[in-house]
Amino acid sequence: MRVGIDVGASKLAFGVADASGVLRMRHRRAWIPSGDAQRDCDAIAAGAHELLARAGVPRGELRGIGVCAPGPLDAAAGVVLGPPNLPGWGRVPLCALLAQALGAPAALENDANAQALAEWRARAGQGVERLVYLTMSTGVGAGIVLGGRLERGADGLGGELGHVSVQWNGERCACGMRGCLEAYAGGAAWQRHLRRVTPASSRAAALAGSAGAVRPEHVVAAAREGDAFARAELERWNGYVARALAAIAVSLAPDVIALGTIAGAAGEELCLAPLRRRLREQVWPRIAERVRIEASALGDELPVRAALIVAERAG
Amino acid sequence: MRVGIDVGASKLAFGVADASGVLRMRHRRAWIPSGDAQRDCDAIAAGAHELLARAGVPRGELRGIGVCAPGPLDAAAGVVLGPPNLPGWGRVPLCALLAQALGAPAALENDANAQALAEWRARAGQGVERLVYLTMSTGVGAGIVLGGRLERGADGLGGELGHVSVQWNGERCACGMRGCLEAYAGGAAWQRHLRRVTPASSRAAALAGSAGAVRPEHVVAAAREGDAFARAELERWNGYVARALAAIAVSLAPDVIALGTIAGAAGEELCLAPLRRRLREQVWPRIAERVRIEASALGDELPVRAALIVAERAG
Repeated sequence: MRVGIDVGASKLAFGVADASGVLRMRHRRAWIPSGDAQRDCDAIAAGAHELLARAGVPRGELRGIGVCAPGPLDAAAGVVLGPPNLPGWGRVPLCALLAQALGAPAALENDANAQALAEWRARAGQGVERLVYLTMSTGVGAGIVLGGRLERGADGLGGELGHVSVQWNGERCACGMRGCLEAYAGGAAWQRHLRRVTPASSRAAALAGSAGAVRPEHVVAAAREGDAFARAELERWNGYVARALAAIAVSLAPDVIALGTIAGAAGEELCLAPLRRRLREQVWPRIAERVRIEASALGDELPVRAALIVAERAG
Repeated sequence: MRVGIDVGASKLAFGVADASGVLRMRHRRAWIPSGDAQRDCDAIAAGAHELLARAGVPRGELRGIGVCAPGPLDAAAGVVLGPPNLPGWGRVPLCALLAQALGAPAALENDANAQALAEWRARAGQGVERLVYLTMSTGVGAGIVLGGRLERGADGLGGELGHVSVQWNGERCACGMRGCLEAYAGGAAWQRHLRRVTPASSRAAALAGSAGAVRPEHVVAAAREGDAFARAELERWNGYVARALAAIAVSLAPDVIALGTIAGAAGEELCLAPLRRRLREQVWPRIAERVRIEASALGDELPVRAALIVAERAG
């Protein structure tokens, strides 16, 4: 048996799978990092312990632990290196801590990289050799799979497609640079923008309770109801995402660009079809026809599936 | 013995190498495609024939022919597919024609791809696993080498870094899209721009004979002499190139981005150092420090070296 753990900025997800990879049980819960890395690691281990107990996995039967966390991290060493979204985490030897707590070897991977591998594997048999995965949760993570292998760049510095520029000299990004995709399409940045511009009278404000409480999901829901303000905001969001997709398409021409979180939630009509249309306007027809723009194939299960793939590397 | 042939839009280059890869003789000449593919192929074969005769290679000793041509082309089939820079060339079975004319098997590759491989090989032993090569001649060609292999994208559609956007809704590119790097930094596009803006009184106009005859090399020469207009134009050019370099650096984080033609001619002070400075402003310090921006290591010999690498695949 293996356990997969996804450590997010606002949630933890756990999954247990057997040796043949069948997902036996999973659990997801909201989580606010405490600001103390040791306390957070204890909470993470306790959550995994609890799910393993519920799934009836005795300590001796656990073969491997896979952990996904936001970068930067040193995957080979199993060490998290102070991600901006995990306050109080400096250099945290997460693999060693979890291995000791749960009694099995652990492996660590950047969350977006592992999710890209999971999305690639979910399309086995479809002739997908090259896949790029973009997740727009708090930030914009990305993973590049070429020929079934992660393409990490020199010293693992590549694959940072959330920091491709979509506006020259644009908004300041959390990373310190300007105009990054994340500064426009990342959940945190988009939410800040929405709270500045959402009219109190809009459907999104009504769904949120007030304009100052609007989150991306309220805009998606309002757009689905046909609200003009919400549709315009989603079109603006699509416009920035499409610029990054165009850069990915002409440079790598992957078989698939898979989009998670916001794009997956917004779906075909509000997001994927408009993105495909915009891509056709920005890149050669042969490339736009060849590169498939798809929602995540794994949806809600993606973080746990990704962590379980990482667990295969442990021990 | 092998022969390498580079078919450019305005020149032909030929080289002969022995079995161990030592370049024995090379020849380059200006060339204007006739508008008739058969006549052009005859001229190409005659040029190769002449160099082989000068090098004293009898017909029976030629083991392979390598040809580089501008895309689009079908490398596996050895067929050129109507490149915009070779008027009158529809679907031309260049490998078959040259194999028949010269009596040895032939292999074909996109010029920028082959040049990327040659630049990668020129850095053997330097720990360069990932290299991106950009050539700014008439257009902007590019090749991506990852782990010693060309990364071509699905159906060979990738690697088109000349068509990464450097200006949203910018100048119309020869490819039909807007704002591509090639529409600003490609030799043909830059020359059109220069002929519009060069003052008759400028040093570049004096070097060219008149403002209407200015070519990129006149601006580079004038900038080297300290001419303010030429320096400003090169800075503008660097600005657009740096945007593409930033996108390449964050997405692929290659060990080296090698730059040919205009950047190679302009050199360290006018081009490479300013590009590195601009890259530091646009991407994370760790990435800007890690990704080396270099001029082509092979200079003038590059097209012939590239074609000779392709010749290794023939027969």
